[in-house]
Amino acid sequence: MKVAGQGELRLLEDIKEFLAAGAAADDAAVIADASGFVVASCDMFVEGVHFDLGWMGTEDVGWRSLALALGDLAAKGAEPAWALASLAIPRRWNVEQLRNLYKGMRALGQQFQTSIVGGDMSSIEGPAVLSLTVAGRTTSMPLARSQAQPGWSVAVTGPLGAAALALREHRAFRLVPLIEEGRRLNSLGLCCGDVSDGLVREMEKFAAMAGVGCVLQGADVPCAPGASLEDALTSGEEAELVCVGPQDAIEEAGLEEIGKLTDAGDVKVIGADLKTTGYDHFA
Amino acid sequence: MKVAGQGELRLLEDIKEFLAAGAAADDAAVIADASGFVVASCDMFVEGVHFDLGWMGTEDVGWRSLALALGDLAAKGAEPAWALASLAIPRRWNVEQLRNLYKGMRALGQQFQTSIVGGDMSSIEGPAVLSLTVAGRTTSMPLARSQAQPGWSVAVTGPLGAAALALREHRAFRLVPLIEEGRRLNSLGLCCGDVSDGLVREMEKFAAMAGVGCVLQGADVPCAPGASLEDALTSGEEAELVCVGPQDAIEEAGLEEIGKLTDAGDVKVIGADLKTTGYDHFA
Repeated sequence: MKVAGQGELRLLEDIKEFLAAGAAADDAAVIADASGFVVASCDMFVEGVHFDLGWMGTEDVGWRSLALALGDLAAKGAEPAWALASLAIPRRWNVEQLRNLYKGMRALGQQFQTSIVGGDMSSIEGPAVLSLTVAGRTTSMPLARSQAQPGWSVAVTGPLGAAALALREHRAFRLVPLIEEGRRLNSLGLCCGDVSDGLVREMEKFAAMAGVGCVLQGADVPCAPGASLEDALTSGEEAELVCVGPQDAIEEAGLEEIGKLTDAGDVKVIGADLKTTGYDHFA
Repeated sequence: MKVAGQGELRLLEDIKEFLAAGAAADDAAVIADASGFVVASCDMFVEGVHFDLGWMGTEDVGWRSLALALGDLAAKGAEPAWALASLAIPRRWNVEQLRNLYKGMRALGQQFQTSIVGGDMSSIEGPAVLSLTVAGRTTSMPLARSQAQPGWSVAVTGPLGAAALALREHRAFRLVPLIEEGRRLNSLGLCCGDVSDGLVREMEKFAAMAGVGCVLQGADVPCAPGASLEDALTSGEEAELVCVGPQDAIEEAGLEEIGKLTDAGDVKVIGADLKTTGYDHFA
């Protein structure tokens, strides 16, 4: 049976038994140590899948990739500490492209006192592949996606869809991860996720990992200027976070409810008829 | 100017200014925290460069890749704690290949109480790419490659060349990282490295990073059964460690001196005429 056509969540199920307990359930790993918690996350960015060098320079690729990787720390309320970068480089690349990739990562990293402390380089006969590991710290244990409860409210930190728009218009959007906002929301007891693959898709992950369902009110989902509701529901690689928690905690955080977790197993959107629920590498 | 033809060390020089101080000088990053040191390392394994699925199954690829990644922790005397795995998967792969890759990683990881706590999966139009980040702990700060001194002795923990032999014969060699031995050698004050790209190549890295030179005595380099001296000098992906330190520390460790660090800038091997010094991705 080929991996193509299985869907990511199914493939995760297939390898789950070989991972640490809970490893497949969240975008970031949380490891307790003597003075709190290390939050670590690893993201892979593949030319032709995550970025297109036909219209995006490598400096933008570097910035965006590190920003997206740090989004997983933002979601867990962690303060970024360090990053490791591994890169498979097509031999046709020139040195300036290579330098610009690292330059872009440094530029974003400097905003969060996070530098590249190490990594690896390899050649590749194929597309460029960048793998980023980021690690940060938090003093309190973040909620896992699997701890989400039916009845909780769903909210987002801001309008969605700008990333889909930028992608269609071939603009390299230099997003900035919401590190401070993530810390604030976690300290209020919310469980957050970044919107890597689209809002509906993120809710499907909550549903799968927590055994819950979700109903989103299309009319309440905030859309970025120029973005349609479908954009807002399916746009991935967004900086905004999605948060779930008890209604009073969502209100205390100053967020607007856009839906509810339910005890059904699926994700519904009232007022939208979606052609896709977001990006799936193995659909 | 293309990256091909530059050589890895030159490319590292080109990106050094964008990395944390010292990041380019060692295979593992050392980060001080409240209760000691985190040692973290990231390695990338590319199909067609690091492994050939024509004669190696994915279970072997998983085992070997994690073993090689943990070799960097062994060199720094760190106790492995956790690993993150990112994988770019060709859509032609079947589910069993995917499962076996993780199965191989788990099998090796279990020997060192190290599990895969998270990661990422992407599709790719090209070769499979596995990126592994491993992290461990040590209570004392390991010596950096850049701290090596002229006059120090050079030694290896065992015979070299078995990996080159296995590669020629298309045998998937399931190496085991020398975690305990690495801890012992670091506690004796030695500076160690794994032999990723061949002994001579590793000495060239010491030379470049510490501003030293090296003379190896070919006759004293231990060769694995069936391996030639050239194999022993250039074979990469070995489990054995190379160690440098003051002569009395090398003796105290029970190791045999095979050469000396010098104040010349280059690496010489007495009694061998090498066609290559090891593997360079960008030669």
